[in-house]
Amino acid sequence: MPQVKPARPVARGRLFFANPGPTNIPDSVLLATARASMDFNDPAFLAVYDACVEGLKKVLKTKQHLFMYTASGHGAWEASLVNTLSSGDHVLIPETGHFSDSWAKMAKALGLRVTLLEADWRRGIEMARIREALAADTSHDIKAVCCVHNETAAGTRLPVEQVRAILDEVKHPALLMADTISSLGCFDFRMDEWGVDVCVGGSQKGLMLPTGFSFTGASEKAMAAHRASKHPRHYFDWTEMLARRQKSFVGTVPVTLFYGLQEALRLMLDEEGLDNVFSRHARLAKAVRACVNHWSGNNGPQLFCQNPERASDSVTAVLMPEGHDAEKVRKIALERFNVSTGGGLNKLGGKVFRIGHLGDLNEPMILGTLGAVEMALSLAGVPHAKGGVQAAMDSLASS
Amino acid sequence: MPQVKPARPVARGRLFFANPGPTNIPDSVLLATARASMDFNDPAFLAVYDACVEGLKKVLKTKQHLFMYTASGHGAWEASLVNTLSSGDHVLIPETGHFSDSWAKMAKALGLRVTLLEADWRRGIEMARIREALAADTSHDIKAVCCVHNETAAGTRLPVEQVRAILDEVKHPALLMADTISSLGCFDFRMDEWGVDVCVGGSQKGLMLPTGFSFTGASEKAMAAHRASKHPRHYFDWTEMLARRQKSFVGTVPVTLFYGLQEALRLMLDEEGLDNVFSRHARLAKAVRACVNHWSGNNGPQLFCQNPERASDSVTAVLMPEGHDAEKVRKIALERFNVSTGGGLNKLGGKVFRIGHLGDLNEPMILGTLGAVEMALSLAGVPHAKGGVQAAMDSLASS
Amino acid sequence: MPQVKPARPVARGRLFFANPGPTNIPDSVLLATARASMDFNDPAFLAVYDACVEGLKKVLKTKQHLFMYTASGHGAWEASLVNTLSSGDHVLIPETGHFSDSWAKMAKALGLRVTLLEADWRRGIEMARIREALAADTSHDIKAVCCVHNETAAGTRLPVEQVRAILDEVKHPALLMADTISSLGCFDFRMDEWGVDVCVGGSQKGLMLPTGFSFTGASEKAMAAHRASKHPRHYFDWTEMLARRQKSFVGTVPVTLFYGLQEALRLMLDEEGLDNVFSRHARLAKAVRACVNHWSGNNGPQLFCQNPERASDSVTAVLMPEGHDAEKVRKIALERFNVSTGGGLNKLGGKVFRIGHLGDLNEPMILGTLGAVEMALSLAGVPHAKGGVQAAMDSLASS
Amino acid sequence: MPQVKPARPVARGRLFFANPGPTNIPDSVLLATARASMDFNDPAFLAVYDACVEGLKKVLKTKQHLFMYTASGHGAWEASLVNTLSSGDHVLIPETGHFSDSWAKMAKALGLRVTLLEADWRRGIEMARIREALAADTSHDIKAVCCVHNETAAGTRLPVEQVRAILDEVKHPALLMADTISSLGCFDFRMDEWGVDVCVGGSQKGLMLPTGFSFTGASEKAMAAHRASKHPRHYFDWTEMLARRQKSFVGTVPVTLFYGLQEALRLMLDEEGLDNVFSRHARLAKAVRACVNHWSGNNGPQLFCQNPERASDSVTAVLMPEGHDAEKVRKIALERFNVSTGGGLNKLGGKVFRIGHLGDLNEPMILGTLGAVEMALSLAGVPHAKGGVQAAMDSLASS
Repeated sequence: MPQVKPARPVARGRLFFANPGPTNIPDSVLLATARASMDFNDPAFLAVYDACVEGLKKVLKTKQHLFMYTASGHGAWEASLVNTLSSGDHVLIPETGHFSDSWAKMAKALGLRVTLLEADWRRGIEMARIREALAADTSHDIKAVCCVHNETAAGTRLPVEQVRAILDEVKHPALLMADTISSLGCFDFRMDEWGVDVCVGGSQKGLMLPTGFSFTGASEKAMAAHRASKHPRHYFDWTEMLARRQKSFVGTVPVTLFYGLQEALRLMLDEEGLDNVFSRHARLAKAVRACVNHWSGNNGPQLFCQNPERASDSVTAVLMPEGHDAEKVRKIALERFNVSTGGGLNKLGGKVFRIGHLGDLNEPMILGTLGAVEMALSLAGVPHAKGGVQAAMDSLASS
Repeated sequence: MPQVKPARPVARGRLFFANPGPTNIPDSVLLATARASMDFNDPAFLAVYDACVEGLKKVLKTKQHLFMYTASGHGAWEASLVNTLSSGDHVLIPETGHFSDSWAKMAKALGLRVTLLEADWRRGIEMARIREALAADTSHDIKAVCCVHNETAAGTRLPVEQVRAILDEVKHPALLMADTISSLGCFDFRMDEWGVDVCVGGSQKGLMLPTGFSFTGASEKAMAAHRASKHPRHYFDWTEMLARRQKSFVGTVPVTLFYGLQEALRLMLDEEGLDNVFSRHARLAKAVRACVNHWSGNNGPQLFCQNPERASDSVTAVLMPEGHDAEKVRKIALERFNVSTGGGLNKLGGKVFRIGHLGDLNEPMILGTLGAVEMALSLAGVPHAKGGVQAAMDSLASS
Repeated sequence: MPQVKPARPVARGRLFFANPGPTNIPDSVLLATARASMDFNDPAFLAVYDACVEGLKKVLKTKQHLFMYTASGHGAWEASLVNTLSSGDHVLIPETGHFSDSWAKMAKALGLRVTLLEADWRRGIEMARIREALAADTSHDIKAVCCVHNETAAGTRLPVEQVRAILDEVKHPALLMADTISSLGCFDFRMDEWGVDVCVGGSQKGLMLPTGFSFTGASEKAMAAHRASKHPRHYFDWTEMLARRQKSFVGTVPVTLFYGLQEALRLMLDEEGLDNVFSRHARLAKAVRACVNHWSGNNGPQLFCQNPERASDSVTAVLMPEGHDAEKVRKIALERFNVSTGGGLNKLGGKVFRIGHLGDLNEPMILGTLGAVEMALSLAGVPHAKGGVQAAMDSLASS
Repeated sequence: MPQVKPARPVARGRLFFANPGPTNIPDSVLLATARASMDFNDPAFLAVYDACVEGLKKVLKTKQHLFMYTASGHGAWEASLVNTLSSGDHVLIPETGHFSDSWAKMAKALGLRVTLLEADWRRGIEMARIREALAADTSHDIKAVCCVHNETAAGTRLPVEQVRAILDEVKHPALLMADTISSLGCFDFRMDEWGVDVCVGGSQKGLMLPTGFSFTGASEKAMAAHRASKHPRHYFDWTEMLARRQKSFVGTVPVTLFYGLQEALRLMLDEEGLDNVFSRHARLAKAVRACVNHWSGNNGPQLFCQNPERASDSVTAVLMPEGHDAEKVRKIALERFNVSTGGGLNKLGGKVFRIGHLGDLNEPMILGTLGAVEMALSLAGVPHAKGGVQAAMDSLASS
């Protein structure tokens, strides 16, 4: 086994993980996963498993179906498509940023026809555009509308509930699919009330777990589509899953993660309460935006999201001033201050850095992160109005 | 979050996990996975990741390609098929037991034509049958031969290296695929030397990790087949992976498992040495078989595998005497003695129980397991010759 | 920092820890101690602390006083003496083995006058001898009787409740002190009912915690003696402790261990129940003795304890046949089979090895241990009747 | 076992532990302590133990003797006195604050005569006063000078090396004792070079371990004094220890902590380097003082330490403005922002709060702490100049 040399100058103290995902994992969750092996058919495990399924449905706010996969979020995306559609089917994807584009790319690779409704990443797509596209599809060629509830690359939200309203208004039968990977457990999502047919989530964001499993909620309507779907599939096949005791997972179940999930759900549902989880995310996100807005004063970095109504409560993308490299700032923050931020994805590479503020997070974690980033801006020679941390503190103290 | 009630009478002390998978995880590996989140593009992580790739290739004994997935072993099976074959392609699967049948079922679900070479699960397929089938395929309609190196359901081995010899002998160009999920890190496997084109492995068996990732080794020949393959795919797509820094994983990388893998590989390659790992498995397996053979004396349970040359060094299936229920024995062993064994799969349900002896295991763990099972046989009223544990001890002390 | 080389040939699989102390720690207890730092005056910690005090008193079966120390059991011994006695005071110590002698040695070092009532370590002291000594002390010169409830070196019990009966019968006012270090949480002890004035316990035995804190229960009578005591002391001083919020600990409180204690007490009191804990220890101890008795058949090793009524349920000392070295057996068991037993202490060095069977233990752990020891006897060329493990199994299956 | 209710409103995210002790423990150290039990005489443990002794001597910068105790720092204080002095001996203790007073109190309780050289806690004692006292003691009645290297209650340093210079200058033979509990591993200490005879340290501060063991370095001169000392002792007795394999610990060794110590020493000595550890502490301490100095501008809280040359690099005490309660600020910081600070000790109760900045700490941890405290000042209605965090950032960015 080759030796591994430290990749950077040693920085003591805890790594501040301000990446939009995976997220900070509470110690109690992490230790719950450090559990000796157990048979996934052992009644002692099944009792935990069943409780987790019930709890996770509460987070999704659904009473319908839940399918889980040993896979990352991309696997759950794939499951959402291969289980409900067939080769050549037409899907409509409102563009939000990198992740809507990735989903579109995947859909094409899987043999679907894709219409990507292009939009300005900074402002978020206008709902009227979606309405127009659906209203125009009088033959109901479109079989599914795939929405990214929270676009991690841009730090923006797409109001999925409004897409449902549009579908209902124009009486379009397409399935409504929502990627809730970086919104679930961060801000409100209501699968049943909003009429979402398939929603996609993963373990490593608002659920505060290591990467390792992902899942899809599925409505009765999605189940009907599933029964009609002819896509070749096995690993992600819902019918295959329904024949198993766990009603999920083709193959071995990632047992240890469920002990972690049990603890995470206890923290979210019992100890803090889902509404408090959401208000904490909102409070911390507001403080981050107050800080970035302050920095922007002196031709400094600014909020990438230009539409306050669409600003994400789980991640903030920060646009660098022209001629300054986001990667330089990230590198200083990481190497000098042990603060890990997210980079710009896709066409935003080098132009944007991202501050994740989701999961197990509190005020001093945010202030420490912002303080380190502000120092990194100084050290990188990036113009900015000093005092961003103070602006965040003012925001927090008044919340 | 619903309360979880204990599912069985309390049994203190450590659970003896004698299930053929997942396997016992060394404490040091388990704690290595209990690690705070880290960016999977962080140079500090990438250094660990690269070392793991190199180490894992040593375990596979390959210098060719390695693709990894956030998935269980079934996911890696699917990856092996969808990356190298196209709809309608013909695959030959020598029957070994439940897992050869499952792979066949999956292949059919994915649109392939499957010939399952039926065989006696207890004796293992005769190599002449494979030779015959391949020799008869003069048009080279068969594109791949899919072998289960270790059949976990039957406790038997299939000599993959002899399949390669046959392919060479009859000059058949089919890809040779091997499922090494429950053999890798338990007994010898040599991807390159044996000319295996695609081999499938998972984290949760001989690698002594939690369930969470799986992988395929791929030969240059497999890569050529991949470039010609037209199966729709994205999550498991090798080409998609090659465009990424990690050359694996579409989507988030399960970072914490790689810290575990680093430690597991250190234990296997540096501390114990792969050859010693294998001889330990052989020694413990021999003792288990000595025990079961002893039990059989009095019309008791016997080895399911009737062909000593095919006996597996990682799992032993035990066939109950007529009229006795394996599940009753398993339940007593679990509830009274805290020993978890594997049940019979598929048509062996109730007729067979299985003792896993793979991964992080030593003599007292085996003796404790066998002792508890022997007591459970007594308590369940199953006839058997007493003294199986003594037979195992005699075997071990003489090794 | 110097490199540490492995001290023995690698033995994979779990170390079987059959040493009489420290003991096996349940994973859930161990992980509960792996907890980030917390202020020992934080209300969140104090709530846990107070619950632990209450729970620990239930284990001691007392409603009187409890003082805790960051110290090992020897520290609690010292606390028992320096808090209640004064220089020159006379204590009576019935000899049980190494630990009664050590307590006597300590008492002398602390300036007390000690009468050690010599006795045969193998048979245990006759109660009549204690009665005689106390009856003879008509001037009540003896201020305390110090009893080792379970003599870890000899594997014997001293019936403390009978000492109380004697004191009452002869109307002797001496304090009754009991070392319960290796009995508490293993077999019954009743501080209040038995009229024990000071009892000494530690974290690392029946409480299933790492070494790190010890404690003394103290009766009202002991408190009165404390107020009269003139021994110079500070670190272990009860009066100093009573002035603190925690009513224990001079200096920093070992916070992390209390999170472990909380979990250990939950397992003992709520999940298994103290009576079940005791019956489990009794059942496992009986099996160990059945095994050793079987070995003895062929001029083999025998039970060191010759008095079945005094046999300990937490540790069994095994006497080697003349001319055979216990250390050789221990070394083989450790190096070849990863089983750690205890050595002979004091004058029993080389003549005795000890099997601890206390704490978090079950049937297969005992059988694995006994199996490895039996194989080690063979490999060391020690005569013995084979079949000891079978005898243990017969004992266990009939319990 | 009684249920434990949460003691405060739930605050998610990591607890910021800015208490001067115990300190933040690196995850890798914490997990290293979560280790299954092992015999403290097992060669595998002894190899780790011996390496730890060697490493710890490097931190102490000594080649002389080291004795360790299962005890907190107060136990090591007691060990320093009872091992080298006898009843009625005279010790000189320069007052520094709460901890010099505690040591004096302990010395008196142990039967020593104590001269406490009173001094202003805020300025630190003038060295001339110590010189005067020692020069006046021409009969060499004073047997030891006990110095607190870092006074945790006041946030001040006492230059121990200057005390040595005075002793040499006035040719006084008294032993020089130093309490390095909260300085060791934080700022420079050199036992041999500075001629310290007995130094006292503990696990839970700069060594970044849980509370659980403490130790004393001892010079040859201290060993000579030990041989002459007549204090009754056993648990802390050095002679008793020298007869044991470990040359420390009377009774069970706290094995798990040594696995933690091994990792902590690796981090300190190999990965970061002791000089870098010190400069990191200096840099962070300077930032904290810059922040507090800024707050003081508006009749706000100020540095308790009025003598910059004596300012501690491991803890900063902050004096509240007249009429404002430090506990109110602490409570808000804890309950609202999950930041734990230290309270005022002794006569400073309510007047002072303390920010610990020792151990496993970095820039964002400090900024998060200071930000939360500044918000708590606002919420508590305590006057202060806003912008303290900015001042800290300016200090850090320029370091």
